[in-house]
Amino acid sequence: MKPSTPKGTRDFLPMDMAKRNYIFDTIKKYFFRYGYSQIETPAMENLSSLTGKYGEEGDQLLFKILNSRLHESKEKEKLAEAFNTSLTKSYNTETLTERALRYDLTVPTARFVVQHQHALTFPFKRFQIQPVWRADRPQKGRYREFFQCDADIIGSDALLNEVDLVHLMADVYSALKIPITIKINNRKLLSALAEISGRKDLIIDITIAIDKLDKIGKTAVMDELLQKGLDEKALEAISPVFELTGDTTSKLTFLKTLFQNTSDGLKGISELEYIFGFYNSKKYPNVNLEMDMTLARGLNYYTGAIFEVKSNLEGFTSSICGGGRYDDLTGIFGLKGMSGVGISFGIDRIFDVMNDHQLFPSDLKASNCQYLIANFGDESIDYCLEIAQILRENGKSVEIYPDLVKLKKQFEYADKKGITYLIIAGASEKSARQFNLKNLSTGEQQTLTFNEISTII
Amino acid sequence: MKPSTPKGTRDFLPMDMAKRNYIFDTIKKYFFRYGYSQIETPAMENLSSLTGKYGEEGDQLLFKILNSRLHESKEKEKLAEAFNTSLTKSYNTETLTERALRYDLTVPTARFVVQHQHALTFPFKRFQIQPVWRADRPQKGRYREFFQCDADIIGSDALLNEVDLVHLMADVYSALKIPITIKINNRKLLSALAEISGRKDLIIDITIAIDKLDKIGKTAVMDELLQKGLDEKALEAISPVFELTGDTTSKLTFLKTLFQNTSDGLKGISELEYIFGFYNSKKYPNVNLEMDMTLARGLNYYTGAIFEVKSNLEGFTSSICGGGRYDDLTGIFGLKGMSGVGISFGIDRIFDVMNDHQLFPSDLKASNCQYLIANFGDESIDYCLEIAQILRENGKSVEIYPDLVKLKKQFEYADKKGITYLIIAGASEKSARQFNLKNLSTGEQQTLTFNEISTII
Repeated sequence: MKPSTPKGTRDFLPMDMAKRNYIFDTIKKYFFRYGYSQIETPAMENLSSLTGKYGEEGDQLLFKILNSRLHESKEKEKLAEAFNTSLTKSYNTETLTERALRYDLTVPTARFVVQHQHALTFPFKRFQIQPVWRADRPQKGRYREFFQCDADIIGSDALLNEVDLVHLMADVYSALKIPITIKINNRKLLSALAEISGRKDLIIDITIAIDKLDKIGKTAVMDELLQKGLDEKALEAISPVFELTGDTTSKLTFLKTLFQNTSDGLKGISELEYIFGFYNSKKYPNVNLEMDMTLARGLNYYTGAIFEVKSNLEGFTSSICGGGRYDDLTGIFGLKGMSGVGISFGIDRIFDVMNDHQLFPSDLKASNCQYLIANFGDESIDYCLEIAQILRENGKSVEIYPDLVKLKKQFEYADKKGITYLIIAGASEKSARQFNLKNLSTGEQQTLTFNEISTII
Repeated sequence: MKPSTPKGTRDFLPMDMAKRNYIFDTIKKYFFRYGYSQIETPAMENLSSLTGKYGEEGDQLLFKILNSRLHESKEKEKLAEAFNTSLTKSYNTETLTERALRYDLTVPTARFVVQHQHALTFPFKRFQIQPVWRADRPQKGRYREFFQCDADIIGSDALLNEVDLVHLMADVYSALKIPITIKINNRKLLSALAEISGRKDLIIDITIAIDKLDKIGKTAVMDELLQKGLDEKALEAISPVFELTGDTTSKLTFLKTLFQNTSDGLKGISELEYIFGFYNSKKYPNVNLEMDMTLARGLNYYTGAIFEVKSNLEGFTSSICGGGRYDDLTGIFGLKGMSGVGISFGIDRIFDVMNDHQLFPSDLKASNCQYLIANFGDESIDYCLEIAQILRENGKSVEIYPDLVKLKKQFEYADKKGITYLIIAGASEKSARQFNLKNLSTGEQQTLTFNEISTII
């Protein structure tokens, strides 16, 4: 049988890791600069912490873990019955499975905040970079194991947090050299839209429909709304949002009139004005910040700001970062009144964008090793070790080729690993306390005495 | 219901993360200096890759993942039958579960090397730092989710690799300021011991018994060996190893005579002499390297060198690092003749040793944030943002307190997070283009103009 990873999961080879670490390190650098502290949670959560939090479809996508030692259970009959019953619906009978792999980082963080509330300083600014698992059908760019990279502020409803997050996204993508558009909306505007249509009860249907505007066009959206039960008059009331054009200022001016009689609408507009007002657009020439009235992203979740980032580079239309505000983040675990706002970077898609557009630094290598000391046999190994240790003490990355093989093979190894320098320190060099240093990219060679090692460190 | 993590798993709070990252970063630094490249493998492996690799007990400790959408299966009857059957033995019927969480990093690495052999450069020096999962009974210091931190060289049988690994362990523990003893043995000496007793067939029993020497003493070990079937003559032949004293040189001299007629014994001694001969003891005053004839560690696995590291600090007798050579690492996945040698750092125990003996740097903090800019309301927020951005651009970590609350509360926040500087930049400072900088640990204050910000960066 050919060895393989499970469907939808991946190995990361050294070069993949170098690239991924470049992205993680860049994001982490800015997380730290903005004052976020790192936390981690376990891969598995109690099933009761996860079920019901992601909708019915989400529940189906949880990877559930079989309880251990079922075959030693004293209640085998009960267990068998539970299994047979659960086959007719969903199989989360407690005797069978009590744990599942985490589906995202938000729910575990909510659980974490409630559990450790007395040990945390609020507002709590945390970041978390860990894998999550979903039993989705794998396809290009969608995996069953993938990393999320989240920053959230929990316990503050100040809009300054939204401003800070927008600057954080702008800083990260500028550092990664990906030109982007950050789209912002506010859930309150979507509520206002439902309100002026006279069908507040249909807010979800309305939002789902207009979320598709740029994909299916105005006519199709109108048709869908009619089907969902909006009448002509309601459609007429909301149709102006399909015609929204111009810059954010003119969009907001228009919406102020449209929503003048809805408190939700005016509140949402004023929140957007706050964020746009404090955003420092001059600092980020490659970032386009725009208001998008059709942006919804899991409407039932967000209560205020909604963010989405898309790359402006050719060929990438999917979101590479998203987030928003949820006013009752920890309520599901019994702690009320804790507002949260956060963003999540999509590492796998960022990786693809950067790979396709060659945005990784050109000196990124699968191996960091700088020096290969050639092996000429045990007679001179003590001398090779002496050289290696001094270089390593001074922060250099050094290998001694472990096997006594032809020099050609040792050269090939250095070449494949992208090692820059080859050091020759055989028996004659050892007795002269010298070594030969060859730059493998330029071909340049020099003979140094052992003490001259200080010139290369 | 009180929110909690599953039994045997843990959350890591910001201060835990700072300490853990200190350990990981130190180990990683040396992994890179010794030329190891990083890889990662998925959390789940195909069950067929894992079962049978860790013995019967190990199979019981695998966390198995329920196949998805069982309730949608068309073969419900077959499934129910499979479940009922598996209840009487072990439940790894394929229809029920096809995947499990990884149990260690060695088997996934073997699978990785075989799967990607054509994309790798051999000898392949890889490191891997990832969690593993075992359905063990949780107890103090033993978790169901814990991190392994492994370095291995695959595809070279040169003893120079063992020498390099010993230096690597010595470097890491010296950097972490943990005085240690590295014990080394060689599987070939254990084979030789069985050989001179005349009971080569009992090598496992002999090894298991003498492995307990320092715990139960000579008499009890002798008793156990008698029970296992060794006669008086056999006991007499091997009893000298219980009396082994003195330094490694005198131990090896003695063993040379004892094993003079066994080729395994002489080979093992010569391998140990090689490693001890090239070890640079002068460089590591806090490392004690010693030969220990009773060290076994999963005998059936290792074929050459066996390593174990213990802290010399009071109160810690358990191993904080271990490893060895396994001559047929990838054979289980069909690739023969690939020898491997490696070590694994026990992060959780290193954490405990360092915590109890206060070996973490005293300036390690839960938050890296250096500057808190106090919030005096929206009127001066643009100015606060300007200051924050310049500091962040210059690599400083800065927060603006998000909410407009009493200054006392903002001070308390800075204090709890260990933030050193408070910046006051309210409306009057804004109009004067100045700000007040207060060192919260010394109480020192100064007023700077906006341009003087360069003096603090």
